[in-house]
Amino acid sequence: MKKNTKKIAEATIIRLSIYNRILDTKERDGVEVVSSSEMEDKISYNAAEIRKDLSFFGYFGKTGKGYYVMDLINSISRILGVDRKWDVALVGAGNLGRALFTYPEFRERGFYIIAIFDNDLSKVGKRLGTVVIQDISELPKTVKKLNIRIGIITVPAQVSQEIANLFTSSRIRTILNFAPSVIIVPESVKLRNNDPCSELECLTYFLTNET
Amino acid sequence: MKKNTKKIAEATIIRLSIYNRILDTKERDGVEVVSSSEMEDKISYNAAEIRKDLSFFGYFGKTGKGYYVMDLINSISRILGVDRKWDVALVGAGNLGRALFTYPEFRERGFYIIAIFDNDLSKVGKRLGTVVIQDISELPKTVKKLNIRIGIITVPAQVSQEIANLFTSSRIRTILNFAPSVIIVPESVKLRNNDPCSELECLTYFLTNET
Repeated sequence: MKKNTKKIAEATIIRLSIYNRILDTKERDGVEVVSSSEMEDKISYNAAEIRKDLSFFGYFGKTGKGYYVMDLINSISRILGVDRKWDVALVGAGNLGRALFTYPEFRERGFYIIAIFDNDLSKVGKRLGTVVIQDISELPKTVKKLNIRIGIITVPAQVSQEIANLFTSSRIRTILNFAPSVIIVPESVKLRNNDPCSELECLTYFLTNET
Repeated sequence: MKKNTKKIAEATIIRLSIYNRILDTKERDGVEVVSSSEMEDKISYNAAEIRKDLSFFGYFGKTGKGYYVMDLINSISRILGVDRKWDVALVGAGNLGRALFTYPEFRERGFYIIAIFDNDLSKVGKRLGTVVIQDISELPKTVKKLNIRIGIITVPAQVSQEIANLFTSSRIRTILNFAPSVIIVPESVKLRNNDPCSELECLTYFLTNET
Protein backbone atom coordinates (compact mmCIF):
# COMPACT_ATOMS: atom_id res chain seq x y z
CA MET A 1 0.00 0.00 0.00
CA LYS A 2 1.32 3.42 -0.97
CA LYS A 3 1.99 5.58 2.06
CA ASN A 4 1.36 9.29 2.28
CA THR A 5 4.56 11.13 2.98
CA LYS A 6 2.88 14.06 4.71
CA LYS A 7 1.13 13.64 8.03
CA ILE A 8 -2.55 14.57 7.78
CA ALA A 9 -4.35 16.33 10.62
CA GLU A 10 -6.83 14.14 12.44
CA ALA A 11 -9.58 16.71 11.78
CA THR A 12 -9.02 16.22 8.03
CA ILE A 13 -9.43 12.46 8.37
CA ILE A 14 -12.70 12.91 10.26
CA ARG A 15 -13.89 15.31 7.51
CA LEU A 16 -13.02 12.74 4.82
CA SER A 17 -15.13 10.24 6.71
CA ILE A 18 -18.00 12.75 6.80
CA TYR A 19 -17.64 13.48 3.07
CA ASN A 20 -18.09 9.77 2.49
CA ARG A 21 -21.35 9.85 4.48
CA ILE A 22 -22.60 12.74 2.33
CA LEU A 23 -21.56 10.91 -0.83
CA ASP A 24 -23.32 7.75 0.39
CA THR A 25 -26.55 9.75 0.65
CA LYS A 26 -26.05 11.20 -2.84
CA GLU A 27 -25.38 7.73 -4.19
CA ARG A 28 -28.54 6.37 -2.55
CA ASP A 29 -30.44 9.21 -4.19
CA GLY A 30 -29.06 8.20 -7.58
CA VAL A 31 -26.77 11.23 -7.98
CA GLU A 32 -23.81 10.47 -10.26
CA VAL A 33 -21.87 13.72 -10.18
CA VAL A 34 -21.65 16.14 -7.28
CA SER A 35 -20.06 19.58 -6.90
CA SER A 36 -18.24 20.69 -3.78
CA SER A 37 -20.98 23.25 -3.10
CA GLU A 38 -23.57 20.46 -3.17
CA MET A 39 -21.50 18.67 -0.53
CA GLU A 40 -21.06 21.59 1.84
CA ASP A 41 -22.66 21.92 5.22
CA LYS A 42 -22.79 25.64 5.87
CA ILE A 43 -22.07 25.25 9.57
CA SER A 44 -19.10 22.88 9.65
CA TYR A 45 -17.22 23.29 6.35
CA ASN A 46 -17.75 25.04 3.06
CA ALA A 47 -17.16 24.14 -0.57
CA ALA A 48 -13.66 25.70 -0.62
CA GLU A 49 -12.56 23.58 2.34
CA ILE A 50 -13.92 20.44 0.72
CA ARG A 51 -12.01 21.22 -2.50
CA LYS A 52 -8.85 21.92 -0.49
CA ASP A 53 -9.14 18.67 1.49
CA LEU A 54 -9.75 16.61 -1.65
CA SER A 55 -7.07 18.32 -3.73
CA PHE A 56 -4.58 17.40 -1.02
CA PHE A 57 -5.24 13.79 -1.96
CA GLY A 58 -5.10 14.52 -5.69
CA TYR A 59 -8.83 14.93 -6.42
CA PHE A 60 -9.60 18.11 -8.27
CA GLY A 61 -12.98 17.40 -9.88
CA LYS A 62 -13.92 18.78 -13.28
CA THR A 63 -14.51 22.52 -13.43
CA GLY A 64 -18.22 23.25 -13.71
CA LYS A 65 -18.97 19.57 -13.33
CA GLY A 66 -17.77 18.23 -10.01
CA TYR A 67 -16.75 14.84 -8.73
CA TYR A 68 -17.99 11.44 -9.82
CA VAL A 69 -19.80 10.16 -6.73
CA MET A 70 -18.82 6.47 -6.90
CA ASP A 71 -15.28 7.36 -7.88
CA LEU A 72 -14.87 9.66 -4.92
CA ILE A 73 -16.46 7.17 -2.50
CA ASN A 74 -14.00 4.51 -3.65
CA SER A 75 -11.04 6.87 -3.43
CA ILE A 76 -11.88 8.17 0.04
CA SER A 77 -12.52 4.60 1.21
CA ARG A 78 -9.06 3.65 -0.04
CA ILE A 79 -7.46 6.63 1.70
CA LEU A 80 -9.22 5.79 4.96
CA GLY A 81 -8.27 2.14 4.63
CA VAL A 82 -11.91 1.02 4.65
CA ASP A 83 -11.78 -0.69 1.27
CA ARG A 84 -11.09 -3.90 3.19
CA LYS A 85 -12.29 -5.88 6.22
CA TRP A 86 -10.90 -5.12 9.68
CA ASP A 87 -10.97 -7.40 12.71
CA VAL A 88 -11.68 -5.77 16.04
CA ALA A 89 -11.32 -6.86 19.69
CA LEU A 90 -13.82 -5.58 22.24
CA VAL A 91 -13.35 -5.44 26.01
CA GLY A 92 -16.51 -5.10 28.08
CA ALA A 93 -19.54 -7.28 27.31
CA GLY A 94 -22.00 -4.96 29.06
CA ASN A 95 -24.94 -3.25 27.39
CA LEU A 96 -22.83 -0.84 25.35
CA GLY A 97 -20.39 -3.57 24.29
CA ARG A 98 -23.24 -5.82 23.22
CA ALA A 99 -24.90 -2.97 21.31
CA LEU A 100 -21.67 -2.28 19.43
CA PHE A 101 -21.26 -5.97 18.68
CA THR A 102 -24.63 -5.99 16.91
CA TYR A 103 -24.25 -2.46 15.45
CA PRO A 104 -25.15 -3.09 11.79
CA GLU A 105 -23.12 -0.11 10.51
CA PHE A 106 -19.88 -1.66 11.74
CA ARG A 107 -20.31 -4.68 9.49
CA GLU A 108 -21.59 -2.60 6.59
CA ARG A 109 -18.35 -0.65 6.79
CA GLY A 110 -16.14 -3.70 7.16
CA PHE A 111 -15.55 -3.74 10.93
CA TYR A 112 -15.93 -7.19 12.50
CA ILE A 113 -15.73 -7.71 16.25
CA ILE A 114 -14.22 -11.19 16.32
CA ALA A 115 -13.04 -11.33 19.94
CA ILE A 116 -14.80 -10.19 23.13
CA PHE A 117 -13.38 -10.11 26.65
CA ASP A 118 -14.79 -9.47 30.10
CA ASN A 119 -13.72 -10.09 33.68
CA ASP A 120 -17.25 -11.00 34.80
CA LEU A 121 -17.29 -14.77 35.24
CA SER A 122 -21.07 -14.85 34.72
CA LYS A 123 -20.45 -13.62 31.16
CA VAL A 124 -17.28 -15.55 30.27
CA GLY A 125 -18.06 -18.62 28.16
CA LYS A 126 -21.37 -17.22 26.91
CA ARG A 127 -21.81 -16.34 23.25
CA LEU A 128 -22.62 -13.12 21.44
CA GLY A 129 -23.63 -14.30 18.00
CA THR A 130 -20.89 -16.77 17.12
CA VAL A 131 -18.25 -15.17 19.35
CA VAL A 132 -17.55 -16.70 22.77
CA ILE A 133 -16.87 -14.13 25.51
CA GLN A 134 -13.40 -14.87 26.86
CA ASP A 135 -11.82 -14.10 30.20
CA ILE A 136 -9.78 -10.92 30.06
CA SER A 137 -6.65 -12.96 30.86
CA GLU A 138 -6.96 -14.55 27.40
CA LEU A 139 -6.65 -11.17 25.65
CA PRO A 140 -2.91 -11.07 24.90
CA LYS A 141 -2.82 -14.60 23.48
CA THR A 142 -6.02 -14.25 21.41
CA VAL A 143 -5.22 -10.80 20.01
CA LYS A 144 -1.80 -11.99 18.86
CA LYS A 145 -3.13 -15.25 17.44
CA LEU A 146 -5.86 -13.50 15.45
CA ASN A 147 -3.54 -10.62 14.54
CA ILE A 148 -6.09 -8.01 15.65
CA ARG A 149 -4.94 -4.40 15.42
CA ILE A 150 -8.00 -2.45 16.59
CA GLY A 151 -9.29 -2.53 20.17
CA ILE A 152 -12.53 -1.10 21.57
CA ILE A 153 -12.94 -0.34 25.28
CA THR A 154 -16.41 -0.28 26.86
CA VAL A 155 -15.52 -0.87 30.52
CA PRO A 156 -16.11 1.44 33.49
CA ALA A 157 -13.82 4.49 33.68
CA GLN A 158 -11.91 3.14 36.69
CA VAL A 159 -10.49 0.14 34.82
CA SER A 160 -10.12 1.62 31.33
CA GLN A 161 -6.40 2.49 31.72
CA GLU A 162 -5.69 -1.10 32.75
CA ILE A 163 -7.39 -2.40 29.59
CA ALA A 164 -5.53 0.12 27.43
CA ASN A 165 -2.26 -1.13 28.92
CA LEU A 166 -3.25 -4.72 28.19
CA PHE A 167 -4.10 -3.79 24.59
CA THR A 168 -0.85 -1.93 23.95
CA SER A 169 1.27 -4.66 25.50
CA SER A 170 -0.52 -7.10 23.16
CA ARG A 171 0.61 -5.09 20.12
CA ILE A 172 -2.77 -3.43 19.51
CA ARG A 173 -1.88 -0.23 17.66
CA THR A 174 -5.22 1.60 17.68
CA ILE A 175 -7.83 2.00 20.43
CA LEU A 176 -11.33 3.43 20.50
CA ASN A 177 -12.26 4.24 24.09
CA PHE A 178 -15.92 4.66 25.05
CA ALA A 179 -15.24 4.98 28.80
CA PRO A 180 -15.65 8.47 30.25
CA SER A 181 -12.01 8.53 31.25
CA VAL A 182 -8.68 9.91 30.17
CA ILE A 183 -6.28 7.13 29.33
CA ILE A 184 -2.62 7.46 28.43
CA VAL A 185 -1.06 5.39 25.66
CA PRO A 186 2.44 5.27 24.14
CA GLU A 187 3.07 7.69 21.26
CA SER A 188 3.13 4.79 18.79
CA VAL A 189 -0.50 3.97 19.60
CA LYS A 190 -3.43 5.89 18.12
CA LEU A 191 -6.22 6.53 20.62
CA ARG A 192 -9.64 8.01 19.92
CA ASN A 193 -12.03 8.84 22.74
CA ASN A 194 -15.74 8.58 22.13
CA ASP A 195 -17.29 9.54 25.42
CA PRO A 196 -21.05 10.15 25.03
CA CYS A 197 -21.07 12.16 28.29
CA SER A 198 -18.56 14.67 26.89
CA GLU A 199 -20.78 15.12 23.87
CA LEU A 200 -23.81 15.78 26.05
CA GLU A 201 -21.76 18.22 28.14
CA CYS A 202 -21.06 20.19 24.98
CA LEU A 203 -24.81 20.46 24.49
CA THR A 204 -25.53 21.50 28.08
CA TYR A 205 -22.82 24.15 27.84
CA PHE A 206 -24.71 25.51 24.85
CA LEU A 207 -28.07 25.33 26.65
CA THR A 208 -26.64 27.00 29.74
CA ASN A 209 -24.59 29.74 28.13
CA GLU A 210 -25.70 30.43 24.60
CA THR A 211 -29.46 30.23 24.48
CA MET B 1 -27.61 32.06 35.40
CA LYS B 2 -24.73 34.33 34.41
CA LYS B 3 -23.97 34.11 30.72
CA ASN B 4 -20.53 34.27 29.15
CA THR B 5 -20.27 37.21 26.83
CA LYS B 6 -17.61 35.64 24.61
CA LYS B 7 -18.37 32.65 22.45
CA ILE B 8 -16.13 29.71 23.37
CA ALA B 9 -14.78 27.31 20.74
CA GLU B 10 -16.36 23.88 20.85
CA ALA B 11 -12.91 22.30 21.17
CA THR B 12 -12.41 24.24 24.41
CA ILE B 13 -15.68 22.92 25.80
CA ILE B 14 -14.66 19.36 24.99
CA ARG B 15 -11.29 19.98 26.70
CA LEU B 16 -13.05 21.30 29.83
CA SER B 17 -15.07 18.11 29.88
CA ILE B 18 -11.84 16.11 29.63
CA TYR B 19 -10.20 18.13 32.41
CA ASN B 20 -13.13 17.16 34.60
CA ARG B 21 -12.47 13.48 33.84
CA ILE B 22 -8.82 13.91 34.85
CA LEU B 23 -9.86 15.74 38.03
CA ASP B 24 -12.38 12.97 38.84
CA THR B 25 -9.52 10.46 38.75
CA LYS B 26 -7.37 12.68 40.97
CA GLU B 27 -10.25 13.09 43.40
CA ARG B 28 -10.82 9.33 43.51
CA ASP B 29 -7.12 8.94 44.30
CA GLY B 30 -7.47 11.36 47.23
CA VAL B 31 -5.51 14.20 45.58
CA GLU B 32 -6.57 17.60 46.97
CA VAL B 33 -4.43 20.00 44.96
CA VAL B 34 -3.25 19.50 41.40
CA SER B 35 -0.91 21.50 39.15
CA SER B 36 -1.53 22.02 35.44
CA SER B 37 1.51 19.88 34.62
CA GLU B 38 0.02 17.03 36.63
CA MET B 39 -3.11 17.35 34.48
CA GLU B 40 -1.42 17.39 31.10
CA ASP B 41 -1.57 14.66 28.54
CA LYS B 42 1.56 15.09 26.45
CA ILE B 43 -0.17 14.11 23.22
CA SER B 44 -3.35 16.17 23.28
CA TYR B 45 -2.68 19.29 25.36
CA ASN B 46 0.06 20.57 27.60
CA ALA B 47 0.15 22.41 30.92
CA ALA B 48 0.29 25.85 29.27
CA GLU B 49 -2.87 25.12 27.27
CA ILE B 50 -4.68 23.90 30.39
CA ARG B 51 -3.70 27.11 32.26
CA LYS B 52 -4.84 29.21 29.30
CA ASP B 53 -8.20 27.41 29.03
CA LEU B 54 -8.86 27.73 32.75
CA SER B 55 -7.69 31.34 33.02
CA PHE B 56 -10.23 32.21 30.35
CA PHE B 57 -12.89 31.23 32.86
CA GLY B 58 -11.14 33.07 35.71
CA TYR B 59 -9.21 30.17 37.27
CA PHE B 60 -5.55 30.96 37.77
CA GLY B 61 -4.45 28.49 40.44
CA LYS B 62 -1.89 29.39 43.09
CA THR B 63 1.68 29.74 41.80
CA GLY B 64 3.74 26.75 42.86
CA LYS B 65 0.67 25.13 44.30
CA GLY B 66 -1.98 24.51 41.67
CA TYR B 67 -5.73 24.13 41.68
CA TYR B 68 -7.95 22.76 44.42
CA VAL B 69 -9.37 19.60 42.85
CA MET B 70 -12.91 19.72 44.26
CA ASP B 71 -13.12 23.45 43.66
CA LEU B 72 -12.14 23.08 40.03
CA ILE B 73 -14.50 20.12 39.47
CA ASN B 74 -17.40 22.19 40.83
CA SER B 75 -16.46 25.22 38.76
CA ILE B 76 -16.06 23.32 35.50
CA SER B 77 -19.33 21.47 36.17
CA ARG B 78 -21.03 24.84 36.61
CA ILE B 79 -19.52 26.18 33.37
CA LEU B 80 -20.61 23.07 31.46
CA GLY B 81 -24.06 23.25 33.01
CA VAL B 82 -23.76 19.78 34.55
CA ASP B 83 -24.27 20.93 38.13
CA ARG B 84 -27.94 20.04 37.60
CA LYS B 85 -30.17 17.28 36.20
CA TRP B 86 -31.06 17.23 32.48
CA ASP B 87 -33.95 15.41 30.85
CA VAL B 88 -33.27 13.74 27.52
CA ALA B 89 -35.46 12.29 24.75
CA LEU B 90 -34.19 9.31 22.78
CA VAL B 91 -35.36 8.18 19.35
CA GLY B 92 -34.52 4.59 18.40
CA ALA B 93 -35.14 1.78 20.88
CA GLY B 94 -32.73 -0.62 19.16
CA ASN B 95 -29.64 -2.13 20.77
CA LEU B 96 -27.67 1.11 20.88
CA GLY B 97 -30.65 3.11 22.18
CA ARG B 98 -31.28 0.55 24.91
CA ALA B 99 -27.58 0.51 25.85
CA LEU B 100 -27.58 4.29 26.19
CA PHE B 101 -30.75 4.15 28.26
CA THR B 102 -29.01 1.92 30.79
CA TYR B 103 -25.61 3.64 30.45
CA PRO B 104 -24.72 4.25 34.11
CA GLU B 105 -22.45 7.21 33.37
CA PHE B 106 -25.37 9.23 31.99
CA ARG B 107 -27.20 9.13 35.30
CA GLU B 108 -24.02 9.66 37.30
CA ARG B 109 -23.52 12.86 35.34
CA GLY B 110 -27.12 13.99 35.61
CA PHE B 111 -28.52 12.92 32.23
CA TYR B 112 -31.89 11.16 32.44
CA ILE B 113 -33.56 9.66 29.38
CA ILE B 114 -37.21 10.20 30.32
CA ALA B 115 -38.84 9.69 26.92
CA ILE B 116 -38.16 7.04 24.24
CA PHE B 117 -39.68 6.85 20.76
CA ASP B 118 -39.63 4.29 17.98
CA ASN B 119 -41.64 3.60 14.83
CA ASP B 120 -41.51 -0.18 15.33
CA LEU B 121 -44.94 -1.22 16.55
CA SER B 122 -43.48 -4.34 18.15
CA LYS B 123 -41.55 -2.03 20.51
CA VAL B 124 -44.13 0.70 21.10
CA GLY B 125 -45.91 0.23 24.43
CA LYS B 126 -43.10 -1.87 25.93
CA ARG B 127 -41.07 -0.53 28.82
CA LEU B 128 -37.41 0.23 29.27
CA GLY B 129 -37.04 0.53 33.03
CA THR B 130 -39.94 2.76 33.99
CA VAL B 131 -40.15 4.50 30.61
CA VAL B 132 -42.79 3.34 28.11
CA ILE B 133 -41.60 3.37 24.49
CA GLN B 134 -43.92 5.71 22.57
CA ASP B 135 -44.82 5.86 18.91
CA ILE B 136 -42.72 8.42 17.08
CA SER B 137 -45.90 10.40 16.32
CA GLU B 138 -46.14 11.22 20.03
CA LEU B 139 -42.75 12.97 20.02
CA PRO B 140 -43.81 16.61 19.50
CA LYS B 141 -46.50 16.50 22.17
CA THR B 142 -44.40 14.62 24.75
CA VAL B 143 -41.24 16.66 24.27
CA LYS B 144 -43.18 19.90 24.71
CA LYS B 145 -45.14 18.61 27.69
CA LEU B 146 -42.02 17.41 29.50
CA ASN B 147 -40.04 20.48 28.39
CA ILE B 148 -37.14 18.34 27.11
CA ARG B 149 -34.31 20.25 25.47
CA ILE B 150 -31.83 17.49 24.56
CA GLY B 151 -32.52 14.83 21.92
CA ILE B 152 -30.51 11.70 21.11
CA ILE B 153 -30.81 9.96 17.73
CA THR B 154 -29.97 6.25 17.39
CA VAL B 155 -31.89 5.38 14.24
CA PRO B 156 -30.54 4.12 10.88
CA ALA B 157 -28.74 6.75 8.78
CA GLN B 158 -31.53 6.86 6.19
CA VAL B 159 -34.12 8.24 8.60
CA SER B 160 -31.90 10.37 10.86
CA GLN B 161 -32.63 13.65 9.04
CA GLU B 162 -36.35 13.07 9.44
CA ILE B 163 -35.94 12.59 13.19
CA ALA B 164 -33.74 15.68 13.44
CA ASN B 165 -36.48 17.68 11.69
CA LEU B 166 -39.04 16.32 14.11
CA PHE B 167 -36.85 17.29 17.07
CA THR B 168 -36.19 20.82 15.86
CA SER B 169 -39.84 21.45 15.02
CA SER B 170 -40.63 20.32 18.58
CA ARG B 171 -38.35 23.00 20.04
CA ILE B 172 -35.48 20.66 20.88
CA ARG B 173 -32.43 22.93 20.87
CA THR B 174 -29.60 20.36 21.10
CA ILE B 175 -29.14 17.01 19.36
CA LEU B 176 -26.63 14.20 19.77
CA ASN B 177 -26.65 12.07 16.63
CA PHE B 178 -25.25 8.54 16.74
CA ALA B 179 -26.32 7.65 13.20
CA PRO B 180 -23.54 7.45 10.60
CA SER B 181 -25.11 10.26 8.63
CA VAL B 182 -24.78 13.95 7.96
CA ILE B 183 -27.84 15.79 9.11
CA ILE B 184 -28.62 19.46 8.65
CA VAL B 185 -30.18 21.55 11.41
CA PRO B 186 -31.10 25.24 11.70
CA GLU B 187 -28.33 27.52 12.98
CA SER B 188 -30.15 27.97 16.28
CA VAL B 189 -29.81 24.25 17.03
CA LYS B 190 -26.61 22.71 18.38
CA LEU B 191 -25.79 19.35 16.82
CA ARG B 192 -23.03 16.96 17.85
CA ASN B 193 -22.28 13.86 15.81
CA ASN B 194 -20.97 10.79 17.54
CA ASP B 195 -20.55 8.25 14.81
CA PRO B 196 -18.54 5.24 16.01
CA CYS B 197 -17.74 4.32 12.38
CA SER B 198 -16.01 7.67 11.77
CA GLU B 199 -13.89 7.07 14.86
CA LEU B 200 -12.87 3.63 13.61
CA GLU B 201 -12.08 5.10 10.19
CA CYS B 202 -9.65 7.48 11.87
CA LEU B 203 -7.90 4.43 13.30
CA THR B 204 -7.82 2.51 10.01
CA TYR B 205 -6.38 5.59 8.28
CA PHE B 206 -3.60 5.47 10.85
CA LEU B 207 -3.08 1.70 10.40
CA THR B 208 -3.06 2.05 6.61
CA ASN B 209 -0.90 5.13 6.24
CA GLU B 210 1.19 5.78 9.29
CA THR B 211 2.40 2.49 10.65
